[in-house]
Amino acid sequence: MDDRTYTADATPDETVTVAGWVHEIRDLGGIAFLILRDKTGRIQIKFEKEEMDDELVETGLDAPRESVVSVTGAVEEEPRAPTGVEVTPDSVEVLSAADTELPLDPTGKVEAELPTRLDNRTLDLRREAGQAIFEIRSEMQRAAREAFRAVDATEINTPKIVATGTEGGTELFPITYFGREAFMNQSPQLFKQLVAGSNVERVFEIGPIFRAEEHNTPRHLNEATSIDFEGAFCDHHEAMDVCESVVVAAYEGVAENCTEELGALDLAEDFSVPETPFPRLTYEEAIERINATGALDEQLVWGDDLPTEGEKALGDDVGGHYFITDWPADIKPFYIMDHDDDETLSTGFDLMHPRMELVSGGQREHRREQLIEGFEAQGLDPEAFEYYTKIFRYGMPPHAGWAIGGERLLMTMLELDNIREAVLFPRDRQRLSP
Amino acid sequence: MDDRTYTADATPDETVTVAGWVHEIRDLGGIAFLILRDKTGRIQIKFEKEEMDDELVETGLDAPRESVVSVTGAVEEEPRAPTGVEVTPDSVEVLSAADTELPLDPTGKVEAELPTRLDNRTLDLRREAGQAIFEIRSEMQRAAREAFRAVDATEINTPKIVATGTEGGTELFPITYFGREAFMNQSPQLFKQLVAGSNVERVFEIGPIFRAEEHNTPRHLNEATSIDFEGAFCDHHEAMDVCESVVVAAYEGVAENCTEELGALDLAEDFSVPETPFPRLTYEEAIERINATGALDEQLVWGDDLPTEGEKALGDDVGGHYFITDWPADIKPFYIMDHDDDETLSTGFDLMHPRMELVSGGQREHRREQLIEGFEAQGLDPEAFEYYTKIFRYGMPPHAGWAIGGERLLMTMLELDNIREAVLFPRDRQRLSP
Repeated sequence: MDDRTYTADATPDETVTVAGWVHEIRDLGGIAFLILRDKTGRIQIKFEKEEMDDELVETGLDAPRESVVSVTGAVEEEPRAPTGVEVTPDSVEVLSAADTELPLDPTGKVEAELPTRLDNRTLDLRREAGQAIFEIRSEMQRAAREAFRAVDATEINTPKIVATGTEGGTELFPITYFGREAFMNQSPQLFKQLVAGSNVERVFEIGPIFRAEEHNTPRHLNEATSIDFEGAFCDHHEAMDVCESVVVAAYEGVAENCTEELGALDLAEDFSVPETPFPRLTYEEAIERINATGALDEQLVWGDDLPTEGEKALGDDVGGHYFITDWPADIKPFYIMDHDDDETLSTGFDLMHPRMELVSGGQREHRREQLIEGFEAQGLDPEAFEYYTKIFRYGMPPHAGWAIGGERLLMTMLELDNIREAVLFPRDRQRLSP
Repeated sequence: MDDRTYTADATPDETVTVAGWVHEIRDLGGIAFLILRDKTGRIQIKFEKEEMDDELVETGLDAPRESVVSVTGAVEEEPRAPTGVEVTPDSVEVLSAADTELPLDPTGKVEAELPTRLDNRTLDLRREAGQAIFEIRSEMQRAAREAFRAVDATEINTPKIVATGTEGGTELFPITYFGREAFMNQSPQLFKQLVAGSNVERVFEIGPIFRAEEHNTPRHLNEATSIDFEGAFCDHHEAMDVCESVVVAAYEGVAENCTEELGALDLAEDFSVPETPFPRLTYEEAIERINATGALDEQLVWGDDLPTEGEKALGDDVGGHYFITDWPADIKPFYIMDHDDDETLSTGFDLMHPRMELVSGGQREHRREQLIEGFEAQGLDPEAFEYYTKIFRYGMPPHAGWAIGGERLLMTMLELDNIREAVLFPRDRQRLSP
C-alpha cells in the first residue's frame, strides 16, 4: 500500500489513508469512534452517524475488533482525541474480518497467562508491551553488532549441523543427516576459534544454539540465541573489556532509541545504562563475600561451585553487573587456559547480573598438547575432534572469547519474569509450536 | 595483548609490538627479513645478523612459516620494504610454533583445491583472498540490515526446530526432540508471517535454513543463510522495491567499505553497484525473450518452468539483475496469492542475477479459506498447521515478502565459482566437518 500513512505521521489538514487493526469501537449514540492501531500507534476515526452514508458507518462500526481496515479521510485537530487528531472517513474498507471471539485481548485490558500469549503470539505482539519487547530485542542486536565492529570484529556464521558436540554428546539433539548421525550445535565455540586462528582474528556471531537439557525453569531454553565473541591475541582481561563494551552498548542503544517501548513496559523511569567499569571479583573474593552475607547455611570453601542462592546474595551485595574471575581450574571447561603461574587457577570468567549468569568466557588453551590432554581428561576422543585440533599444529595464536545468552541479556535488561517472554517462539521440553 | 599495534598502524619513529604469523623469511646472508602478517596486512622485520644478538636472530629466523610471533622494536622508514617501513627487533617471542609441513600455503603461491581449502579453513583464511571473502560477507550483512531498518523493518529470530515443514516433509532433516519427531526448519516463512500479522508489521531475519535436498551442485548447500523479509500492508510491488533496496545496499556497502578486499579478489576494477531500477519482466515477456534468443532447442510455452539454459540466455540478454513477475499460479507455492482479476496468474516474483536465481517472493494469501484450500491442494494436512492458520481468523493483513539466498548473493557479487567458497564451513551430502 504505497499510499498508506502511518497513524503516527497523520498530520492535520491532510487527507490520508491509514490502515491497521480495529483496536476498539466507542459508540456514544449519534457519534462513534473507531480506534485504529498500527505499528506506530493509534488514531481516532470519527463517525457522525446522521451526517454520513449509512453503508460507510456500518462498514466501520460493524467490523469486529482486530479486523484489518483501511480508512481514507481528512485529518483534523481534535484535542480530545488520544493523539490530538482524528480522521473523518470518506471511505472504509475491511481488508480482513476477524472472528468475534479472540483467544487473547490485544488491548491489554484482559490479562493473559504466558502459555496463552505464546500460543497466540501474533495477538500478543499486537499488545503494546508485547511489541515493545521485540522492538527492543532488535535494537539490542543492532547496538551489540555495532560495538563488535568498533573493536574490529568480523561477523561470521558457523554451522548449526555438526558431527560432534563441543562438550560431549549428552546434551545434543541428534539429527539424521543423509543416513549419518549428526547433531544440532550447542555452541559456535570450536568454529569461532578456528576462524580466530586465521587472519580474520576477531569474530562475532549472533545465532541460534541448541541444548537438549531437561531443564524446565524460567531461565532455560532448548533453543536460544548466543552472542559470541572470539579474538586472537586477546587474553581474558581484554575479552572482558570487549564483553563490557558490548553489554553497555546494548543498553545504550535501547536507552537512546527505544524510549516509547520502555514506556510501554513501564520502564521509562527505571531504565539505566549499567555503570562501568564492572567490578571484577576473583572467585576467592566472591566466596568470601557470599560467606560474609550469611545467606547460606554452610560456608563455601575453595573449589565449590557457586549455588544460586549464593549468586543472588552476592548480586544484591554488589548491586549491578560484575565479573567473577580466576575460577578453580577444575570447575571450568578443559578448553579454558589455566594461569601460567598457577595451574589450579583458570583464566575463565563469568559476567553476572544480580539475577543470573549472563556470560561465560576465558582465554583458550592454544597449546595443542595441553588441549589434547584436556579432551582425554574430559573422556572425549581427541580423534573425533581431529578437524579442530589439527589446526593447532599450524600456528594457533593465543586467543580469548565469551558467549552471552541473548535472551538472558534481554530478560535482565527488561526485568522479564520468564525467559520465554524474550523469544518469539520459544522451544522447551513441552513446546514445539507455534 | 593490550600493547599490540596492528601492522597497518606501525608508523616510523615509534617503538611497537606487532604480533602475527610468519608469512615468509627472506635470508640474504648478512641480512634477513621476516615478513610478519596480521589481520591488517604485513610488515618487514629486519635481522642484521652481525650486529644483533645471536639468540634473537635465531628465534626470529628459525621459526617455521605460520608460527605465531610477537616482535618489539623500532619502526623506521624503508622505501624498499613492501609497506615503506620496517621494524628492527629488540625482542622476538614465538607464541606458537607451527609444524614445518603445512597442508595449504597461506601465501597463496601454491594454489590449493577447494576440498583442501575447506578441510583447512583456518589456513585458507590466512590467504588474502580467503580472508577477503568473509570480510565482505560481514559487510554485506551489515549493509543489508541497515537497509532493512531504513524501511522500518524489525530484526527477528524465528525457531530452527519446528514441528512441521513449510512445504511438506520430504526435504527436511528429522531430529529427535525429547522423544518426539521434529525437524530443522527449511525456511522462516510461516513464522515471519505470524510476526508480520502483528503490530511489528515489517520484519527481517538473516539466519540459517536447512534443506535435506540431495542436490550436489556448485550452487546448492544443505545448510544456507537466508535473508528474509516480510511486510504487512505490502503488495508484491512494494516487496520488490524493498528487495531491490537491500540488494543494492549490500553492493554499495561493499563498494564503499571493502576496497582492499575487492583488490585481494582482483575485483577492484570490475566491481560495480547494479543499476536501478531492476527491469521487471512478466513471465510471459520472459519466455518470449528466451524464445527469441534461440538458445533452446524447443520453444517455451506458457506454463513451462524456466530451464537453467533459458535463464542463462535471458540473463545474458538483460545483462544485469532483473525480476520475473506474474508467474503461472500453478508453478508457485500455494501460500502465494493469485491476482484478483486472473486466478491463473500469481503475484509471485523471482529476482534473477544473470548467473542464477537469487530471490523468490510474492504477496501472501491472507484469506484463511483460500489458504486452507491451498494446503489441501498441496496434499498437506491443514490440521498440522493449525498453529499457523488459526491466526488468520483474527485479522491477518495483506502482506508480502521474500527470501534472498545469502550465499548466492555473495557468490554472484564476487564471481565465485562454487557456493562453498561463500560459507566458512559448508554442509553438503558429503561434508559434515570441520
